[in-house]
Amino acid sequence: MELLGESLIGAHSVRGDAGEITATDMTTGKVVGPHFGGNTKSDLDRACGLAEAAFEPYRALPLEKRAVFLEAIAQAILDLGDELIQRCMQESGLPRPRLEGERGRTVGQLRLFAQVVRDGGFLDVRIDPALPERKPLPRPDLRLRNIPLGPVAVFGASNFPLAFSVAGGDTASALAAGCPVVAKAHSAHPGTSELVGRAVQKAVKDCGLPEGVFSLLYDSGTAIGQGLVADPRIKAVGFTGSRRGGLALMGIAAARPEPIPVYAEMSSINPVLLLPGALAARGAEIARAFVGALTLGAGQFCTNPGLVLGIDGEGLQAFIDAAKAAVLDAPAATMLTPGIFNAYCSGVETLAGHAGVETLARGKEGTQFQGRAGLFATTADQFLAQHALQDEIFGASSLVVRCRDEAQLISVLHAIEGQLTAALHLTEADHPLARRLLPLLERKVGRILVGGFGTGVEVAHAMVHGGPFPSTSDGRTTSVGSLAISRFLRPVCYQDLPAGLLPEALRDENPLGLTRRMDGKVATPTA
Amino acid sequence: MELLGESLIGAHSVRGDAGEITATDMTTGKVVGPHFGGNTKSDLDRACGLAEAAFEPYRALPLEKRAVFLEAIAQAILDLGDELIQRCMQESGLPRPRLEGERGRTVGQLRLFAQVVRDGGFLDVRIDPALPERKPLPRPDLRLRNIPLGPVAVFGASNFPLAFSVAGGDTASALAAGCPVVAKAHSAHPGTSELVGRAVQKAVKDCGLPEGVFSLLYDSGTAIGQGLVADPRIKAVGFTGSRRGGLALMGIAAARPEPIPVYAEMSSINPVLLLPGALAARGAEIARAFVGALTLGAGQFCTNPGLVLGIDGEGLQAFIDAAKAAVLDAPAATMLTPGIFNAYCSGVETLAGHAGVETLARGKEGTQFQGRAGLFATTADQFLAQHALQDEIFGASSLVVRCRDEAQLISVLHAIEGQLTAALHLTEADHPLARRLLPLLERKVGRILVGGFGTGVEVAHAMVHGGPFPSTSDGRTTSVGSLAISRFLRPVCYQDLPAGLLPEALRDENPLGLTRRMDGKVATPTA
Repeated sequence: MELLGESLIGAHSVRGDAGEITATDMTTGKVVGPHFGGNTKSDLDRACGLAEAAFEPYRALPLEKRAVFLEAIAQAILDLGDELIQRCMQESGLPRPRLEGERGRTVGQLRLFAQVVRDGGFLDVRIDPALPERKPLPRPDLRLRNIPLGPVAVFGASNFPLAFSVAGGDTASALAAGCPVVAKAHSAHPGTSELVGRAVQKAVKDCGLPEGVFSLLYDSGTAIGQGLVADPRIKAVGFTGSRRGGLALMGIAAARPEPIPVYAEMSSINPVLLLPGALAARGAEIARAFVGALTLGAGQFCTNPGLVLGIDGEGLQAFIDAAKAAVLDAPAATMLTPGIFNAYCSGVETLAGHAGVETLARGKEGTQFQGRAGLFATTADQFLAQHALQDEIFGASSLVVRCRDEAQLISVLHAIEGQLTAALHLTEADHPLARRLLPLLERKVGRILVGGFGTGVEVAHAMVHGGPFPSTSDGRTTSVGSLAISRFLRPVCYQDLPAGLLPEALRDENPLGLTRRMDGKVATPTA
Repeated sequence: MELLGESLIGAHSVRGDAGEITATDMTTGKVVGPHFGGNTKSDLDRACGLAEAAFEPYRALPLEKRAVFLEAIAQAILDLGDELIQRCMQESGLPRPRLEGERGRTVGQLRLFAQVVRDGGFLDVRIDPALPERKPLPRPDLRLRNIPLGPVAVFGASNFPLAFSVAGGDTASALAAGCPVVAKAHSAHPGTSELVGRAVQKAVKDCGLPEGVFSLLYDSGTAIGQGLVADPRIKAVGFTGSRRGGLALMGIAAARPEPIPVYAEMSSINPVLLLPGALAARGAEIARAFVGALTLGAGQFCTNPGLVLGIDGEGLQAFIDAAKAAVLDAPAATMLTPGIFNAYCSGVETLAGHAGVETLARGKEGTQFQGRAGLFATTADQFLAQHALQDEIFGASSLVVRCRDEAQLISVLHAIEGQLTAALHLTEADHPLARRLLPLLERKVGRILVGGFGTGVEVAHAMVHGGPFPSTSDGRTTSVGSLAISRFLRPVCYQDLPAGLLPEALRDENPLGLTRRMDGKVATPTA
């Protein structure tokens, strides 16, 4: 498929004429064609108009058709074949196996949401039948289901050009909920975005859906992204990116005449807690696994382990020694964009320059745009005194905080901001301490894991990829896993509707075979 | 119980010394003692500190103990006996049967949430067991449950001194979720608030809970309310009141270093749609029921029918004629506060003064602080041209909008803001039109009802008392019914936790007997 540098507005390809976006081949530093046209406000207006027009017919589709559409997108992405992988490697600097894996994740996500749609549990159907004889007043017939919010704006992420971008988790969950999507391509991978966008556009057409179910815009600056969030037809926003970017979108959304929810996944340093028993038993082994997780994908994960907490002593020293050796050995890795590379370098430099921060090790030098891993250490006293030591450095940099004792470890945990994940390394002897830490960790993070690192984020029903502010804008939600659909829903109650006017999901005879709450009790359908 | 004019800070009674709050006997216009002390910032600080300290032990309680606590509050409120009703009648001007009913609702709400807590469905337990043999990567063990957000600020409402105030729906659902509550008494009914507050305080003590689970503050101005929303220990806000008040709290919450959710139920004019068949069949009958709903409780319900839409013609005229007659006959009714009475009078005057608004009828004159019902009419053209005609007038005033035809009725619906409810009156012949209206109504309101009016809000599992902005700050939720608990929860995922560290709700053996999602499929417990 020839890349045209065009945006996709409903069924049409439109070359925007507000500036240009050009990809950089991160391995060579050279510009890769074609040039993509940035969209204008009037393109944005058309995309939002089409999305609004598509909303009613799209949400009214039988669930089965919505599920088939999600599967058609998955297939259309696979049908792009190796061209997608090659273009994406070029634009992102990410290696083939990672991108093949990410494509699998993207396709798997779409298929998971197809199942979620078929299951129908997300409708949260509740029926409280009428009690006409109740005294002093009869109870009306009450039925509840979730409906979709309306058109959703999705912002592609730099670090997951497939799984968190044009047809990534936000798009999949919004479409699954019944919301049309207006996506904004990330400027770092415009060609990947066009390819995936065309796959979605094809699925819309092949499934006979209204064209406005999906559009893809390009932004040569910030006007289109900001305009999307401000557009009155947009009813929710999905975003994965920097804290600054997320906060800006939250501000725009809150200032609208009608404020809307922004689901922004922003920044996290994902503390790793090394408990004494684990350090004594396998400090060096944990260190090697840790450096593996730290340097995976050049450290460019929201869940990268950027903070290590341990109690000073022989065990922690053994961990540090082994981690130093592994970092020294770590090859430099190509980063996603020149901007991310530069921010990483300056972030590491700033960290190294803080009072009381020791540079333990740097990874091997690389070529242009290749980030060198960095391992640093400080004391808990310093960490508690300098809030800037919590700043996320996006890339393979981590800070080990030496705590005096358990009490100080707990003080540090109290002091950290909301995070996506916390990882515990422990043995059975550490369980009493772990029991003390868990309630505190629950308040700080969205996912607590034992014996590993947060970098892998399974797409599953029980996953939470979210966490208290500022790791996300809204800690009540997740952006990965089937629960992500609930971000784009709201409940509606139907009181005393004649049977003939009830939505199918709410009819007595349960034609969709849904699990429902009847008078508050879960009732699974009889086969 | 002697009223002392004191706030309740944990287990203590504290007389605030930042100004005074005094109730007015609405039937006489006279001051009712005692004077209540307004709280200081340092009182607020103590209440929030105690709430924070109570959070961990409170949320760690077995669900059964939490449920028993809610039931103990219900019983303690009943144990206040007639003193509560008498004081509340005096402060609110509401009649005895209404307040006895409201007490029943309040107690019923607490008991419903006790059931919800015992059921445990709100924990939304999901388990995706490990798949160690999966290729290319094993799947970790993933388990999810909801945990409470933290201490919640609850603002008492003027119009429901029991059911939406100190121990009302917000408090009941927050406590059910596992969140301590710091309540702010509404200044219109300080004595009622103290009585109910002491009942909650007694239940906290009798159940042996940490004192900070509940505090009750008084605010002689706005500093305490605003300070509560700004306090870093408060993690969510429940509010029922004016749009201005709700927007102010939303602004404070969004500007915090850590923004928090505000669940504000603000303003709504609750359109009533009179479809042609129903008008032809029983226009006059509907009109009499409508005026009954309009004037109920002096019209001081969030769900009061403030807007009537119909297609011009004989049927609508018959409705109007009968409604006029009923309004002319309607006795004036004592309003809740002098401020609300004055706002009602000026709101009605403003409405009557708008171009193209005809005053159809006013209810009987009354004594001081008694509101007279008001019925007004305008054309859809006028309504569409003047946005101010949508402003809520809190009280027994309603505006009939004459539409030319179905298309114009639909245009009016498109133009209205988010609402709590919409009521349809129809016959079978109206079903085709109703089917066209329903998708639009779903986007505009939280509850659609047929054949009645929205004023009764059943406390049930399938209730939604919420709706798109500006009827509430967050249309994804409800403030009435069991689903209200979800406002105060967030999900946490546990990955690869050793069995010994798992929360009880997540253990394989399901000791709490919860309905769970296992690998995405609903599994009810085996008995």
